[in-house]
Amino acid sequence: MIRINENYPKLSSSYLFSEVSRRVAAFQASHPGAQLIRMGIGDVTLPLPPSVVSAFRDAVQELAAEDTFHGYGPDLGYDFLRGPIAEIDYRARGADIDPGEIVISDGSKCDTANIQEIFAHDLHIAIPDPVYPVYVDTNVMAGRTGSFRDGRYGGLIYLDSTEENGFVPDLPKSRVDLVYLCFPNNPTGATITREQLAAWVDYARKSKALILYDAAYVAFIRDPSLPRSIFEIPGARECAIEFRSFSKTAGFTGTRCAFTVVPRDCKAWDSAGGAHSLLDLWSRRQATKFNGVSYPVQRAAAAVYTPEGQEETKALSDYYLGNAKIIREKLGGLGFACTGGENSPYIWVKTDMESWKFFDLLLEKAGVVVTPGAGFGMCGEGYVRVSAFNKKENVQKAMQKIAGAAKDLAV
Amino acid sequence: MIRINENYPKLSSSYLFSEVSRRVAAFQASHPGAQLIRMGIGDVTLPLPPSVVSAFRDAVQELAAEDTFHGYGPDLGYDFLRGPIAEIDYRARGADIDPGEIVISDGSKCDTANIQEIFAHDLHIAIPDPVYPVYVDTNVMAGRTGSFRDGRYGGLIYLDSTEENGFVPDLPKSRVDLVYLCFPNNPTGATITREQLAAWVDYARKSKALILYDAAYVAFIRDPSLPRSIFEIPGARECAIEFRSFSKTAGFTGTRCAFTVVPRDCKAWDSAGGAHSLLDLWSRRQATKFNGVSYPVQRAAAAVYTPEGQEETKALSDYYLGNAKIIREKLGGLGFACTGGENSPYIWVKTDMESWKFFDLLLEKAGVVVTPGAGFGMCGEGYVRVSAFNKKENVQKAMQKIAGAAKDLAV
Repeated sequence: MIRINENYPKLSSSYLFSEVSRRVAAFQASHPGAQLIRMGIGDVTLPLPPSVVSAFRDAVQELAAEDTFHGYGPDLGYDFLRGPIAEIDYRARGADIDPGEIVISDGSKCDTANIQEIFAHDLHIAIPDPVYPVYVDTNVMAGRTGSFRDGRYGGLIYLDSTEENGFVPDLPKSRVDLVYLCFPNNPTGATITREQLAAWVDYARKSKALILYDAAYVAFIRDPSLPRSIFEIPGARECAIEFRSFSKTAGFTGTRCAFTVVPRDCKAWDSAGGAHSLLDLWSRRQATKFNGVSYPVQRAAAAVYTPEGQEETKALSDYYLGNAKIIREKLGGLGFACTGGENSPYIWVKTDMESWKFFDLLLEKAGVVVTPGAGFGMCGEGYVRVSAFNKKENVQKAMQKIAGAAKDLAV
Repeated sequence: MIRINENYPKLSSSYLFSEVSRRVAAFQASHPGAQLIRMGIGDVTLPLPPSVVSAFRDAVQELAAEDTFHGYGPDLGYDFLRGPIAEIDYRARGADIDPGEIVISDGSKCDTANIQEIFAHDLHIAIPDPVYPVYVDTNVMAGRTGSFRDGRYGGLIYLDSTEENGFVPDLPKSRVDLVYLCFPNNPTGATITREQLAAWVDYARKSKALILYDAAYVAFIRDPSLPRSIFEIPGARECAIEFRSFSKTAGFTGTRCAFTVVPRDCKAWDSAGGAHSLLDLWSRRQATKFNGVSYPVQRAAAAVYTPEGQEETKALSDYYLGNAKIIREKLGGLGFACTGGENSPYIWVKTDMESWKFFDLLLEKAGVVVTPGAGFGMCGEGYVRVSAFNKKENVQKAMQKIAGAAKDLAV
């Protein structure tokens, strides 16, 4: 008899964004004429930059003729993309990463979801709270977390990110083998300083722990003192894997390209004490279970690294940061305490009520969709995440609607 | 301390095609001037059909403007692609499948690799021998197979596909919960009749087993009596999942699009006897760990279902089947016993020696690269797989070279 993976029913609820969609659909069904402004899911709205479109189109054309056709690509990605990533995203910033340590994929969601497969089953895993739900859910599905009770999984170590610690979690007090970190943070928009990140690297090296560093929002950093990559921190090559994406950097949410950096110095151990290269393990995982990213998509991503591509993609993040500024200023003016939005596209807003209640209220009174903080973890309760990925006029309209509904929002 | 998934080191060897590449590279390094003809990896060579290129290019252009831009797509794929698949690949052939049962992905390799995640850990799994290595390796990585000893994993049930049974395995003699089948077969090129497939469906229904049916090579079926889909067999909706790909059908190996069909009637059980929908489980897996296929790629795939697309893609498989005919005839004329190549792009050639030895000999004496049968399992020993995915002139040249080297090949 065929039986299921019984870890799946342990998932605490439906995926956060599915629940948001469900509530929005229900509201629309009962309010057919309502005009909603969606500031929930972090999806980009600006088109692909011209140099990216041009490279994308040219590569499609290559597939139309026998002498320029491309079939299966190299398992880990084309050198024409891995080379410029190493040079511009890393070496130019003093981070010693070579192209062979970069593995191209179709998304950071996939990579942060799949990476846990290469590790042991009985690890002590630390996960920030609030957190991007994929880190938790994929460990639930793999059976590492135990059951969900009173809002948390018994088998995980939660790293509280709160107003008190500026949404940068303190180092763990108990043993930890694997830590997920994300900066600029989703959902709080908080950033980590070089000193704070160095303390984490130091901790990981001393305890032979591994840091999974999600840097999907790096393009929004404007403060020159902030680290762009964990590999700018000395020693990180031994104890960290970094995830990056073109989704938010270059508008690739519908185009799909990302990469994961696994330095050759990065090791993990077997139970007999033997050391194994994580780059080898990840490469084997990808070569066995994945077949590479669409050739024209990789060409499109490579165009991001041309001088025009660099300029055009910076204009994208500048635009969204302009929206973030408006959100911060307007919501701040209404008396809401806000984090993020300065080096991040997300603004984390304190609501003084349960976050799903605030979500429903905002939907009903202002017609604005945000993401309830409680969906990201217990420490997210009382907050909502507002996304700056939108058209400027929608952001302005949403802020007007929220201002108009302020008395109903209990502020 | 971070520790590895200790199932990875149980993988019997490097991925088959990596080992082929390694030997070819070594040969080229020692024979710098040698002209090789690659008939190993099943990669297509003909360009994308014009209607596909045109839809692909138009969709890229949509991403260039704000009002036609597409960000994140629906988790399970766009309706513009799922609808025509249901209609043309299934309903038009009498298979009752609706668009909501079709889940779009970036490759059948990924889908056949990832599907095992939704099942219990301690299943009795039957795998044909020879077989596409991904089915085995992904179960090894998941810890379901035990160790590799004397050429096989102790925890798997092997279904021998031999000359005696026409390379269609007999029904299992011991208990089985999950069965992998692939027809037209990779690597043997064998096909399964409607009666044989009905016997498998009957077996699965009676024993509440599930069939994972890989139909990646369906486009090569020309015999009208052969089933194109397992869902043409009554009762299969309860006990089968089918995998299909645009890779070989439409030249998408470098473009990346595929789909998996999970009928709503298809259930699996938990240990308390509760029934669960496999469509729900697979949808949850994909929504959590995958972020959809590139929008322009889905548009390109949808173009396959236009009248022009249908005609153009049939011309692709006709071309490769023409190559397959040449290979069968020439190798048959040299005295090799051949299977496949009539409703399949692969020809399974009996070599009368160890298949890696024949591989090396063919590389050295004829400059032709094939895939050693032993890499697909013990029953593949003594065979090689010859792929018809090539330019016709290369196929003709390879056959001439093999004929010229015939005396060295011990035929």
